[in-house]
Amino acid sequence: MKKFMDKDFLLETPTAVRLYEEHAAKLPIIDYHCHLVPAEIAENKKFTNITELWLYADHYKWRAMRSCGVDEKYITGDASDFEKFSEYCRIMPLLIGNPVYHWSHLELRRYFDCELTINSANCEAIWNITKEKIAKDNWGARDYIVNSNVKLVCTTDDPADDLHYHKQIKESGFEVQVLPAFRPDKGLNIERKGISAYIASLGKSTGVEIVDYESLCKAYTVSLDRFEALGCKTADHGMDNYIPFAKPDQYHANEIFKKALASDGADISEDELALWKTQMMRFFGLEYVKRGWILQLHYGVLRNPNKTMFAKLGPDSGYDTIHAKNCIADMASLLNYMQENDALPKTIIYPINPADNAAVGTLCGSFCRGDGSNTPTVVQGSGWWFNDNIDGMEAQMKSFANLASLGNFLGMLTDSRSFMSYPRHEYFRRILCNIIGEWVERGLYPDYDAAAEIVERISLYNAVNYFGFEI
Amino acid sequence: MKKFMDKDFLLETPTAVRLYEEHAAKLPIIDYHCHLVPAEIAENKKFTNITELWLYADHYKWRAMRSCGVDEKYITGDASDFEKFSEYCRIMPLLIGNPVYHWSHLELRRYFDCELTINSANCEAIWNITKEKIAKDNWGARDYIVNSNVKLVCTTDDPADDLHYHKQIKESGFEVQVLPAFRPDKGLNIERKGISAYIASLGKSTGVEIVDYESLCKAYTVSLDRFEALGCKTADHGMDNYIPFAKPDQYHANEIFKKALASDGADISEDELALWKTQMMRFFGLEYVKRGWILQLHYGVLRNPNKTMFAKLGPDSGYDTIHAKNCIADMASLLNYMQENDALPKTIIYPINPADNAAVGTLCGSFCRGDGSNTPTVVQGSGWWFNDNIDGMEAQMKSFANLASLGNFLGMLTDSRSFMSYPRHEYFRRILCNIIGEWVERGLYPDYDAAAEIVERISLYNAVNYFGFEI
Amino acid sequence: MKKFMDKDFLLETPTAVRLYEEHAAKLPIIDYHCHLVPAEIAENKKFTNITELWLYADHYKWRAMRSCGVDEKYITGDASDFEKFSEYCRIMPLLIGNPVYHWSHLELRRYFDCELTINSANCEAIWNITKEKIAKDNWGARDYIVNSNVKLVCTTDDPADDLHYHKQIKESGFEVQVLPAFRPDKGLNIERKGISAYIASLGKSTGVEIVDYESLCKAYTVSLDRFEALGCKTADHGMDNYIPFAKPDQYHANEIFKKALASDGADISEDELALWKTQMMRFFGLEYVKRGWILQLHYGVLRNPNKTMFAKLGPDSGYDTIHAKNCIADMASLLNYMQENDALPKTIIYPINPADNAAVGTLCGSFCRGDGSNTPTVVQGSGWWFNDNIDGMEAQMKSFANLASLGNFLGMLTDSRSFMSYPRHEYFRRILCNIIGEWVERGLYPDYDAAAEIVERISLYNAVNYFGFEI
Repeated sequence: MKKFMDKDFLLETPTAVRLYEEHAAKLPIIDYHCHLVPAEIAENKKFTNITELWLYADHYKWRAMRSCGVDEKYITGDASDFEKFSEYCRIMPLLIGNPVYHWSHLELRRYFDCELTINSANCEAIWNITKEKIAKDNWGARDYIVNSNVKLVCTTDDPADDLHYHKQIKESGFEVQVLPAFRPDKGLNIERKGISAYIASLGKSTGVEIVDYESLCKAYTVSLDRFEALGCKTADHGMDNYIPFAKPDQYHANEIFKKALASDGADISEDELALWKTQMMRFFGLEYVKRGWILQLHYGVLRNPNKTMFAKLGPDSGYDTIHAKNCIADMASLLNYMQENDALPKTIIYPINPADNAAVGTLCGSFCRGDGSNTPTVVQGSGWWFNDNIDGMEAQMKSFANLASLGNFLGMLTDSRSFMSYPRHEYFRRILCNIIGEWVERGLYPDYDAAAEIVERISLYNAVNYFGFEI
Repeated sequence: MKKFMDKDFLLETPTAVRLYEEHAAKLPIIDYHCHLVPAEIAENKKFTNITELWLYADHYKWRAMRSCGVDEKYITGDASDFEKFSEYCRIMPLLIGNPVYHWSHLELRRYFDCELTINSANCEAIWNITKEKIAKDNWGARDYIVNSNVKLVCTTDDPADDLHYHKQIKESGFEVQVLPAFRPDKGLNIERKGISAYIASLGKSTGVEIVDYESLCKAYTVSLDRFEALGCKTADHGMDNYIPFAKPDQYHANEIFKKALASDGADISEDELALWKTQMMRFFGLEYVKRGWILQLHYGVLRNPNKTMFAKLGPDSGYDTIHAKNCIADMASLLNYMQENDALPKTIIYPINPADNAAVGTLCGSFCRGDGSNTPTVVQGSGWWFNDNIDGMEAQMKSFANLASLGNFLGMLTDSRSFMSYPRHEYFRRILCNIIGEWVERGLYPDYDAAAEIVERISLYNAVNYFGFEI
Repeated sequence: MKKFMDKDFLLETPTAVRLYEEHAAKLPIIDYHCHLVPAEIAENKKFTNITELWLYADHYKWRAMRSCGVDEKYITGDASDFEKFSEYCRIMPLLIGNPVYHWSHLELRRYFDCELTINSANCEAIWNITKEKIAKDNWGARDYIVNSNVKLVCTTDDPADDLHYHKQIKESGFEVQVLPAFRPDKGLNIERKGISAYIASLGKSTGVEIVDYESLCKAYTVSLDRFEALGCKTADHGMDNYIPFAKPDQYHANEIFKKALASDGADISEDELALWKTQMMRFFGLEYVKRGWILQLHYGVLRNPNKTMFAKLGPDSGYDTIHAKNCIADMASLLNYMQENDALPKTIIYPINPADNAAVGTLCGSFCRGDGSNTPTVVQGSGWWFNDNIDGMEAQMKSFANLASLGNFLGMLTDSRSFMSYPRHEYFRRILCNIIGEWVERGLYPDYDAAAEIVERISLYNAVNYFGFEI
């Protein structure tokens, strides 16, 4: 029997161990999509206990606790930090097989040198060990990043953001590159209440009075320039529910936009929304192509289906669901439309439903143009969110290998709000090395050196090359 | 090479063996959803040969035989019992990898101490061994249940049923609890011919003249009280095809219901049906919440697509199909609507399409309320019907572990019409122990005692606790 | 560590090795669905280098190269044959885990006795070795077929084809049976530009002036007779996108057909197309039943979503995608309609989306009639196209085993345009033996001889028996 989470954790063969130790483990981390808060990096936010680090903002952990019927008081409520941690420890043994189980124990080992098993019996000991270490080290947000061997981070930022925290970070000479990523979802969702106020704020931020499609585009251009000036290399679109397509034209897009502003989103039909989104994807695609940015397309989440809890806790509180509506044909039409208009940048597509792996894998292949760039034009992204676990990552990588070229996979990102989530890269790399190591051991791949190169590409170099990072 | 189906059947590691032998194997069985016929338990039905036990009513076996091109005469036709058994033996070797192969051999071992391989060569020997044992033991339905270490069974009963067999079983002092479960599908499917007669029978059974929505609800209340008086703890809804949603109101529900009665289902549109079902789910949900019952929601079956065979054999004869239509968004709307009306009881959702595992798993998590009950509010049910096999159960459990907390999984049920189907619990428990044993052996979980507790919870205690059984 | 692709390639247990060596490996090949060009067989086409054999017509390899960002010049463009091969060698290491990696190395071993690893370093050596061997052997298309131990091949032929190459092959006394297969897709897709010209060519080929539904059917009958005269045993329908259903009648079908002819497909609505296709499936089904042919139904491909590349390269150039639209209910309605009209022949259904495995598996079972033929009426086909890899084949076979009877699986076909694709049968058989061998070793199946019989059935005899081939 293997010891729990020892140095060969998840590495089942000698080749896997060697690939990990000699190649994957040594490489620094590029985290090209996350939700770290720039202000917290700028201000080098400090923490006083493990509950602040783990339970203040992590919807994965909240969801896990609710699945055990924990009282919300101990999740997002007014219980004390120790009480919350105590409940987390209590339910931890029930999370057998859940990535949160492994993440939590990895973080305890990597950041606190603590090898205790998380459960009620060890709760107080862990609380004290972590509290003392936090006090002694006195690490801030930046220290967690630096000490995780991270070289570059892309945050997620709204076009209306003036990016002053990003400027502040840059000017501070922080040794890790912290780049903004352009996330224009709010302006695409013109059917939602609040769109008028949002557009007003975008106008204010860009100094453009936005009254129609043309002025909107002008405002976005100001914002895009601002992002570019700070080194932005990627835009990230979160397309909720599914990806729609309706052949657009500027005249109708303009009419729809003006109607949305006038009614604050109330009068927008599904067809109008589809037309609007397609028109905007064309606009943004052209801009991304021009600037050499990568488009990241996350889709398929049903947001906030539980209205009662949404009213209490707001978005991103662990209440989202996989939507599961098939939109492959519409997505194909969108990519084709963008391509026909020279508006299809290099694109990463992240389905949320694991049942879509194969279809999305083939769709990506259908938009690889044979462009001589030595990278795929459109490529499936890593196992995301509900797929960010051993089974999900293995399924995504095997599907990718079967349907494309695994050697060109762009590897892992955290998608996280936590400064202690970098062991997820370790987790990913171990799983990657285990798959490839097993293939080599079983005689399915003949060349250790080529396998090692692939491990290094996926762990780091493919992403550097694809996004054009300079590290 | 391992011996076929020896004591370590399906247990691949020492830890798996230990978990099974020291924990899972020792526990009694709670079968909280099955289709046993109460009359047969009440009358302690006897059997004279293996064909009666195996082939008179088991659509799994019928389907398997048809997939081998066996003549229907030997399946549901007028061939002799021995001829039928002979055909079953003949095709058995072709069922390699099918759960029916393992179930049949397990049943032969557990109920007849017969370790022969089922095939043509052994057909006569098995026929004779089983015939003699049946004659010698002279077991009735109750003996099979008792000798399978079953402590509690929930059958599946119509609201129009007067439950007199259940009363009879209870009054007989049978040592196993046999509880009714409330299954009101017929009254929900108001678009089907025969609805008027069904409603009349419900009225007769409850002593309520049913002429509109209000009197229907009154009749159901009488029925619900009757079920509750006999210890009912759960309602089971079989939502064919997919789960619809349309925001209802009592006025329209009443109009639709009256139209259905007048036309015997002929004039009901898809939209009306959706409204009606939503209205009724709200009504029933309120009742279940009030009574502390668990709602079991089975959905996604395309019933009787083969009309020719349906005309010959009727329903439940092995001709159903996975529908595969995505209804996650509607299901989310339904759960949300029920919750907003205080009509969302603890609920178990069973998808029939394995491709829905992940989406349903996340949906369940989105309706866990953080209620402090130490159990999930909404939870995915065990691998059901077409998923009741090694691959299906493993996929369901791993998905459950990744997306929720496997320690809270409610475990297995037979969903069966057979008094000899209890080895399916053994089958399930072996698979469960094998998964968890492997995780412990691979160093993915550090705590044998906690793992053993989880095995015991899933094998028995979680269900006892969730349903509030008293054993 | 196992040597790369040694004699036990993919065979992980002693039983798997024995099953493969003593049973699967010895059997000849029946390839009951492929896209070989009859003219090339008739003329015994010769080749001069490996690029002609591998890269002139293989969209799998093209897609793989594009996923690595290779310039189209080296894929389908005007680069030299050596340059193309050189690019293929260069990206090969990145295809770790892709079936193309294994196929290419298997072909190199089996046809050229060359065990070099394909990469840039070995490119020139492989180029020379293969060139010399091609020159020395001077094999033509027929030699590749014969030396691959192939006994029978079904090509894919249009009803308008006069089959003169088939006649020529037959008259030449070629030792391998080369049978035509009837593929009437073009006449079903009446919504596409070019339908009028196609129908005219069908009329010319059959000597029937086609002006309406009746004369169309008459023309098809002439064509069907022509195919039958040349030993045709199967029709193959490629239903793009999804399978529709609309209850048809001859009057409307006729109107729709005439409209399509008049407008060259321009005026056909989706509903009309569904009605038309259903009507024609009934017509064809009746013919296939009468002639004892097998219907093969491939569905679910989104063809040519990338219009830019389609304009450059035309169809079948590696730009298709899995459509992923669920059509189980419509497919059930179609099968039922055909059955009710005595027009449901023995049918093989091939889904392209692996997420459909379970639903299609159950659908097939729902149309097995218990007909006493000892074969399934409707049966799921082997892992096809994007599923033709280790994971896809394993998933398909395990799903098949769980939901039907694996002993009746019809086994592999190449679906290929290449004369060197027969090692895919070897690949398949190794995977098959590995699955069954593992079951035997783990004590899940007790009978080696029965397992060996199943391996032989799936490798050869089931297909011979199902199609009624005479070999």
